[in-house]
Amino acid sequence: MSKRKIEVCFTVESAPYYDVSNSNVVVVDIFRATSAICAAFANGAKAIIPIPTEQEAEEAKKNGYVVAAERNGQKLPFADFGNSPFNFTPERVSGREVAYSTTNGTRAISAASQGRSVVVGSFINISSVANWLVNQSSGDILILCAGWKGKYCIEDPLFAGALAQKLMATGKFVTDCDSTQTSIQLWNMAKTNIMGYLENVAQRHRLKKLGLDDVLEYCFTPDSSNHVPVLVDGKLVVNC
Amino acid sequence: MSKRKIEVCFTVESAPYYDVSNSNVVVVDIFRATSAICAAFANGAKAIIPIPTEQEAEEAKKNGYVVAAERNGQKLPFADFGNSPFNFTPERVSGREVAYSTTNGTRAISAASQGRSVVVGSFINISSVANWLVNQSSGDILILCAGWKGKYCIEDPLFAGALAQKLMATGKFVTDCDSTQTSIQLWNMAKTNIMGYLENVAQRHRLKKLGLDDVLEYCFTPDSSNHVPVLVDGKLVVNC
Repeated sequence: MSKRKIEVCFTVESAPYYDVSNSNVVVVDIFRATSAICAAFANGAKAIIPIPTEQEAEEAKKNGYVVAAERNGQKLPFADFGNSPFNFTPERVSGREVAYSTTNGTRAISAASQGRSVVVGSFINISSVANWLVNQSSGDILILCAGWKGKYCIEDPLFAGALAQKLMATGKFVTDCDSTQTSIQLWNMAKTNIMGYLENVAQRHRLKKLGLDDVLEYCFTPDSSNHVPVLVDGKLVVNC
Repeated sequence: MSKRKIEVCFTVESAPYYDVSNSNVVVVDIFRATSAICAAFANGAKAIIPIPTEQEAEEAKKNGYVVAAERNGQKLPFADFGNSPFNFTPERVSGREVAYSTTNGTRAISAASQGRSVVVGSFINISSVANWLVNQSSGDILILCAGWKGKYCIEDPLFAGALAQKLMATGKFVTDCDSTQTSIQLWNMAKTNIMGYLENVAQRHRLKKLGLDDVLEYCFTPDSSNHVPVLVDGKLVVNC
């Protein structure tokens, strides 16, 4: 069997230049959407429904859903909570469908939705995502980083590099993609002192200004969950 | 005086997400457009006229211009030559205005054209570009990488990192931009063995397939020219 390709796309807005439809797409928004989604499933959520617009999120609230929604890091007024992984507690999400709308994360899921498959990746479930991708019978891999308002953000490529390196180590994948190679190099540079490396990261400063940077260590701690959220009929679910 | 900001944009298509209009924009397409433009001025070209479309390039040929034009690395049939820096010889370009159209490079110049100023950067003129930017009285710096058909290409961030590092060393600039930091880190990783580092680069393989990879060493050799091409009224000129 020929080896499957790995590519990394650095922003949602660049997704149209990559081969989404032939790929198993891994959506990544480490600070904080995809870390939060993985936390929700670790805490027993039944499903996450990605909601593109504020208006639709407010509508979901009126329809009785638990709603997590933020813009620019801050909770929207009508929402039950924002997008810190720490908000998705078992009390709030266990057994429930949660409507979820974020600045970049849900846009990334939407951009990925034409993919052969769409899964949510974070350090929280990185090994399980890698195994899930290895076990797919076919399809290339596109690691789709959310970025921040069209700009490159380092925390997502760090995850992409860690994941790509795990996949390459199986011998079942190849890459001729510069962004994949850059991601792997950055990860290998950062991994021995990740908290030190994150000191100068733009998104850390944005989160710090908002008092929201308490999640950094959690978001970079690998494998606290073995759930792989998969997009099925517009909802993220696990164990399918 | 407050310090001026540096940002790096990894693809032409991402330029709308950066503050082009308040920036001195450095256009970069190392393989091969901006290296070729710098080679042309080193060999006495009077001006380079960036031409967006094939049709306009053919029109320029009919109007008597020397025309350099390629798509996907290959010379267009009507053109005098393609975009290898080695094509822009003194015999062909000295004292002349050259019409120039390339896959990504001229699109990058077009995307930059709303900038406070637009200059062409390559390793060939890197120190002169750095000095030129330091000597501007104001305006932030945006290093605009061409990329390749919407995708990230490593050779342009390597230049961006080398240039950003030179600028930061003056103490007159700051950056809170992750792509700038990534570029500087990549450059520092690659610079001691740049030809070895380029072995796995996607664009090198594309050029090799076309028999066009003879320019790699030239394109990474710094400071063979002290000319800084500046966009003035739609033409690139030097010494202004």
